[in-house]
Amino acid sequence: MSATGTSSGHPIATLDTSIVPRLPASSPTLFEAKKIKNLSFETIAKALGREEVAVAALFYGQAKASPEDIKNLAQVLELDESLLESQLSGYPDRGRQMEMPPKEPLVYRLFEIIQNYGYAYKAVLNEKFGDGIMSAISFSTKIEKETDEKGDWAVITLRGKWLPFSRF
Amino acid sequence: MSATGTSSGHPIATLDTSIVPRLPASSPTLFEAKKIKNLSFETIAKALGREEVAVAALFYGQAKASPEDIKNLAQVLELDESLLESQLSGYPDRGRQMEMPPKEPLVYRLFEIIQNYGYAYKAVLNEKFGDGIMSAISFSTKIEKETDEKGDWAVITLRGKWLPFSRF
Amino acid sequence: MSATGTSSGHPIATLDTSIVPRLPASSPTLFEAKKIKNLSFETIAKALGREEVAVAALFYGQAKASPEDIKNLAQVLELDESLLESQLSGYPDRGRQMEMPPKEPLVYRLFEIIQNYGYAYKAVLNEKFGDGIMSAISFSTKIEKETDEKGDWAVITLRGKWLPFSRF
Amino acid sequence: MSATGTSSGHPIATLDTSIVPRLPASSPTLFEAKKIKNLSFETIAKALGREEVAVAALFYGQAKASPEDIKNLAQVLELDESLLESQLSGYPDRGRQMEMPPKEPLVYRLFEIIQNYGYAYKAVLNEKFGDGIMSAISFSTKIEKETDEKGDWAVITLRGKWLPFSRF
Amino acid sequence: MSATGTSSGHPIATLDTSIVPRLPASSPTLFEAKKIKNLSFETIAKALGREEVAVAALFYGQAKASPEDIKNLAQVLELDESLLESQLSGYPDRGRQMEMPPKEPLVYRLFEIIQNYGYAYKAVLNEKFGDGIMSAISFSTKIEKETDEKGDWAVITLRGKWLPFSRF
Amino acid sequence: MSATGTSSGHPIATLDTSIVPRLPASSPTLFEAKKIKNLSFETIAKALGREEVAVAALFYGQAKASPEDIKNLAQVLELDESLLESQLSGYPDRGRQMEMPPKEPLVYRLFEIIQNYGYAYKAVLNEKFGDGIMSAISFSTKIEKETDEKGDWAVITLRGKWLPFSRF
Amino acid sequence: MSATGTSSGHPIATLDTSIVPRLPASSPTLFEAKKIKNLSFETIAKALGREEVAVAALFYGQAKASPEDIKNLAQVLELDESLLESQLSGYPDRGRQMEMPPKEPLVYRLFEIIQNYGYAYKAVLNEKFGDGIMSAISFSTKIEKETDEKGDWAVITLRGKWLPFSRF
Amino acid sequence: MSATGTSSGHPIATLDTSIVPRLPASSPTLFEAKKIKNLSFETIAKALGREEVAVAALFYGQAKASPEDIKNLAQVLELDESLLESQLSGYPDRGRQMEMPPKEPLVYRLFEIIQNYGYAYKAVLNEKFGDGIMSAISFSTKIEKETDEKGDWAVITLRGKWLPFSRF
Amino acid sequence: MSATGTSSGHPIATLDTSIVPRLPASSPTLFEAKKIKNLSFETIAKALGREEVAVAALFYGQAKASPEDIKNLAQVLELDESLLESQLSGYPDRGRQMEMPPKEPLVYRLFEIIQNYGYAYKAVLNEKFGDGIMSAISFSTKIEKETDEKGDWAVITLRGKWLPFSRF
Amino acid sequence: MSATGTSSGHPIATLDTSIVPRLPASSPTLFEAKKIKNLSFETIAKALGREEVAVAALFYGQAKASPEDIKNLAQVLELDESLLESQLSGYPDRGRQMEMPPKEPLVYRLFEIIQNYGYAYKAVLNEKFGDGIMSAISFSTKIEKETDEKGDWAVITLRGKWLPFSRF
Repeated sequence: MSATGTSSGHPIATLDTSIVPRLPASSPTLFEAKKIKNLSFETIAKALGREEVAVAALFYGQAKASPEDIKNLAQVLELDESLLESQLSGYPDRGRQMEMPPKEPLVYRLFEIIQNYGYAYKAVLNEKFGDGIMSAISFSTKIEKETDEKGDWAVITLRGKWLPFSRF
Repeated sequence: MSATGTSSGHPIATLDTSIVPRLPASSPTLFEAKKIKNLSFETIAKALGREEVAVAALFYGQAKASPEDIKNLAQVLELDESLLESQLSGYPDRGRQMEMPPKEPLVYRLFEIIQNYGYAYKAVLNEKFGDGIMSAISFSTKIEKETDEKGDWAVITLRGKWLPFSRF
Repeated sequence: MSATGTSSGHPIATLDTSIVPRLPASSPTLFEAKKIKNLSFETIAKALGREEVAVAALFYGQAKASPEDIKNLAQVLELDESLLESQLSGYPDRGRQMEMPPKEPLVYRLFEIIQNYGYAYKAVLNEKFGDGIMSAISFSTKIEKETDEKGDWAVITLRGKWLPFSRF
Repeated sequence: MSATGTSSGHPIATLDTSIVPRLPASSPTLFEAKKIKNLSFETIAKALGREEVAVAALFYGQAKASPEDIKNLAQVLELDESLLESQLSGYPDRGRQMEMPPKEPLVYRLFEIIQNYGYAYKAVLNEKFGDGIMSAISFSTKIEKETDEKGDWAVITLRGKWLPFSRF
Repeated sequence: MSATGTSSGHPIATLDTSIVPRLPASSPTLFEAKKIKNLSFETIAKALGREEVAVAALFYGQAKASPEDIKNLAQVLELDESLLESQLSGYPDRGRQMEMPPKEPLVYRLFEIIQNYGYAYKAVLNEKFGDGIMSAISFSTKIEKETDEKGDWAVITLRGKWLPFSRF
Repeated sequence: MSATGTSSGHPIATLDTSIVPRLPASSPTLFEAKKIKNLSFETIAKALGREEVAVAALFYGQAKASPEDIKNLAQVLELDESLLESQLSGYPDRGRQMEMPPKEPLVYRLFEIIQNYGYAYKAVLNEKFGDGIMSAISFSTKIEKETDEKGDWAVITLRGKWLPFSRF
Repeated sequence: MSATGTSSGHPIATLDTSIVPRLPASSPTLFEAKKIKNLSFETIAKALGREEVAVAALFYGQAKASPEDIKNLAQVLELDESLLESQLSGYPDRGRQMEMPPKEPLVYRLFEIIQNYGYAYKAVLNEKFGDGIMSAISFSTKIEKETDEKGDWAVITLRGKWLPFSRF
Repeated sequence: MSATGTSSGHPIATLDTSIVPRLPASSPTLFEAKKIKNLSFETIAKALGREEVAVAALFYGQAKASPEDIKNLAQVLELDESLLESQLSGYPDRGRQMEMPPKEPLVYRLFEIIQNYGYAYKAVLNEKFGDGIMSAISFSTKIEKETDEKGDWAVITLRGKWLPFSRF
Repeated sequence: MSATGTSSGHPIATLDTSIVPRLPASSPTLFEAKKIKNLSFETIAKALGREEVAVAALFYGQAKASPEDIKNLAQVLELDESLLESQLSGYPDRGRQMEMPPKEPLVYRLFEIIQNYGYAYKAVLNEKFGDGIMSAISFSTKIEKETDEKGDWAVITLRGKWLPFSRF
Repeated sequence: MSATGTSSGHPIATLDTSIVPRLPASSPTLFEAKKIKNLSFETIAKALGREEVAVAALFYGQAKASPEDIKNLAQVLELDESLLESQLSGYPDRGRQMEMPPKEPLVYRLFEIIQNYGYAYKAVLNEKFGDGIMSAISFSTKIEKETDEKGDWAVITLRGKWLPFSRF
């Protein structure tokens, strides 16, 4: 049985209806069930055995659900499994939900980090790994919370496979 | 005495002259000295007691040098300290070196992570921290290298102070 | 009991329906009730114990309502509290209601101030506070009216926490 | 005789040479003299009897110098008055120094305030003043610093004449 | 009693339904009544005691109707006054109906005049009035028709208050 | 012999060097001579028998000089006629000096008038003239100054040939 | 009685429903009737005594129908004349149906011709006609088909009145 | 021996130096020689046995010169053949000289024709030729002048090979 | 009788409903039938005797169906032939379904290849074929899968007719 | 000893100087030597043991040279090896040489293929490989020429590693 609400005490995240036209049909289905059952991504992620960010991405149509994910989602959200199967069967059409540059202040800060440190990341990565890129596909990410006397700190980790440019 | 070259065996990062018009006067000064002395950011970062990404950002005009940084840079790069003082005295005019969306494949992958996972990050951060943002100012970042049987992995950590929206 | 109309004698602000698709579901709910009851933001702000701009931002989906705000809004606007709770439970997805550069003449003037004086603000702020930014999150703002023999003057105050760039 | 440096102890603001192509000829003249003499905008503003932001705007070519300003600038910066007269004689061609949306984090925060609160400002201003705009021309602005136990706060005041739309 | 049709013999202007989503609710109401009653802006303008361009702007949601305008509009268009009051009570959210650069050939020609002669206007206005702007708010405009042996000429007059930049 | 300075007492308009790369070679030639001789466009326009705006447009490379204009310009500006002939012999490559939307506040106000009143102008012009456009080529424009108790007013007149769409 | 289908044997052109939101109400009316009756623009153009391109433009809301056109369209398309009169009574709001640069390969090729040969056209037109433009209003255009041993050739003719810039 | 000036009596077209940075090295070479020798494109085109528009395109770097063209250009322009060979040896990098949408009024009119009639051209071409495009590569174009009692008319002919989409 | 599912074992591709407004009416018809019958593009392509990419393009409204294609599609998808005939009768309005630059990671990689190697392709093609282009119309493309010890490789072949620029 | 010219008989590709500001310092060095020695990419590619497209990309700063490449380039181009080492030592800053959408007709055709077939490629790749992308990094490409009775055909092959999205 799943806990309701978040462990942090903050309200759960819900869907702003004004972005629904940019999302797949599964997004309102999933978010409405999440809201009715008052479940956090932490709770749902545990039920799926996945990272919270991956699950939130799945809700926004940015990650693919496996058959087990669908089964688990149907159970934890008390949704009809065949409806979920139908709505989640496709391959995600990623990236369209977000306008770039992002107007949302939280997302803008992440964008700004890339804008400001992009070349610095490249220079250091090149020196450590050679000519190539960090994959955004063979990739995982997670969010952690740290607290010290100055307050709370968000720690985002990006971990991607290094792909050297092929010589041809 | 500083080591030359990188510890990874890959060549050091140098400056593409075609972006010089978008950089402050200090950037070509610093990068030329780095090239002549064949120093990695790892070596320079140790000399300054700072993170590699911070030092690379400083070279690209995206971070401010403290008076000690200037002294140390002058020493490790064998540059005239008063020249560096003059070129690094201002406040960085950040962000202008990068076109967005980035065309550089490595930087684009980072941008794409924000584009694809932006709302997922927001949803999870909101559930963990409430309504606010992760600061990109009261912020640090670092790059680590992990290697397993599948190859090399780049791990980028973003750590920022959580700032709740003020109620007014 | 709340006063109707504005204290200035000017009509109250209502919602242009053509921007509704860019706003959360709560915006038409709130603005319709405001129109029916003919309440100014001044009156509603008093009922909530908040600044007028904060309340107008809340109506446009740009600020988060606390549980007390929801209770007070339900009362002053004579709206069903559970409807408001449901529509205002999420975290604001800020910034999407406004096209930039703004076409609206009033908002454009504010944009133009930033466009014209942006570097001047930066230079003076840097000299007063060092390298950093004025937070737009740990932030409040208000509007006051002054009148002299030349006519009316709008006075907008922006007050934000100074955040120095972290050294790392 | 003018004081050198800033009263805050932070270094003075100087000019990033990479934006010089977007500025009038007077900007490098003024900024170089300011740097050589190590003068803050506060000091120069006192010498001119103007607001710091106005003086910084003048340095960036965003405000017009009066004949007295030119005389005072020549004196405080130890510059040739006829050179300044020649370089400052024109009418400012405002706004071109800034890319919008701004990439500079400090200026972006100000832009974001307009982006997020633009309609809220409009609604409250309309209710207080009727149909019109706050002038950005018949306008003044200033920056103040406040300090409390939470740290430093930047306070920016925008004061503009209210202009009602003409009926015709 | 109002005349039907235009005095020029050309058909009256009606509303292209494809821009309705960018207009306030009042626009289709007004334009439909105008079409049914076959009234020109000249006729309606006389009934309101306003300029034709102002009335057309009001129909497109770009100008505010006074209470008398609403009364007169209800009468001349045979519309329910309370409906008009409700739809025209807000403050215009100006500028959003037009994409810039305009694709419409007639409007593009006006845009092109600004594009080509913008700096010339500025230079001549500066020499005649000093440093400032011509207000677009404290402003009126009208269209006149002249005919000579070469054909018809449209004469558009723009009249705006001169606003000098404040010294601060 | 030409008068120096403007009749209004305001300084003459000069050229901001930062837009020179967007202008033809004739522009700096003409503006420098104008500055040295301290001539207003009013004075030069009289010498050429043309409108001030036309002459300013010619200085900005937006209008063609006739052989007589070149002769007169050489005389009034004390420039070498063959140099002017060479620099002014081509056909103007119009429109490139201005970024649109204009950032300059004065020019933006004119742009905003088109943005806000564009459809209103179209509707009224269509009712007065039928389906067509007001030419921006077979076109003249002028600026006048009016003064009343409220202050100064700028009056800009646009006069263009009406061109009906051909039926084919 | 009108012939059905095209004389070339190719299917008739119909309307892609996804651009309907960018077209006036008359466009789906006209195109549906054209499809039901299986009429080519050639056939309809003959019935109206106009060029095929003009008629296709009329169907896309880019040209004005005369009263006779409306009568003829009603007859050839077997549509209710009063419906057509109502839908075609306005003045075309031209240009909005097309995104520029065009994504459609056929239209892009025309755009590319202007992009590549624009300055060449200007130079040759200037040498032949002086300083001015070729009108796109006092203008006609047609398409012809030529066939030789290499295959089919499309020949598009643009014919516009030459308008010299007015001297003022 | 070539005639000087144009047959129309209008001055020859020359190069606006402000677009030189967007053109290949051959463009200023060719245009300067053209100016010195006062040759029209008509005269040069005759010497090359090519269309005027093709020659103007070659001057702007938009068409390739054959070895015979280079020989003929060297002769008619009295230029060093080996210089021309060197500067004209590459493959044109087409399209970069023109900003789109074009700001130049003459070129804009051509762009506007595509914008307004693009879909009409497509519909008529599809009905005449089937599914395909008119080639802009296997393509020629020319300009003719017609004069009637109404004035001068520019006639531009575009002739391109019809390419049907391959079935695969 | 057609096989269901893909031969690779991966699920079939379906349609993300959020792009339906950018597609012709035929796309949802075709994709829904494909989903109900669980058919891969491989299976459908065999039934039509066409390449998989061509069939997928047809489903997205980017390729024209021949009468035989329509017959075969109706059969394999068990759809009403006359409905398909009606929905597929028009000429494709290509390119509008895709935003450029593409946000979808898979499509972005293809875009990036053009961005990075565009000039390299041009240089090599020019050396092999002369001045011209590779046609995207007289063109075919296919996807193949190769597997080696490093994993799977996607091989995309683009084959287009070489079109030399016409000399004129 | 290397052959001069191309095997096709077409001239070799050279560098348009107007894009030099967007390229690294190595590009003009390499292209000038190539021009002087009249070498095709085919010849140079053989000397380096690499694909022609890879070598052309290296010339445009889009691919990294290995130490052996530098040695071979110095030899085949008769360039100073230490100069090449210095200019080619950095990591390529890819993508900046190309404006997107490309204006160059040849490159545009490739872009258009992605624009038109992007979703079709995605659908077919997903069905063949599952959820993932074709790498543009672990990637090679080549150009071949085929000739049949219809003319020449360019065949471009793109071959990339398939990367499945990580599950996390």
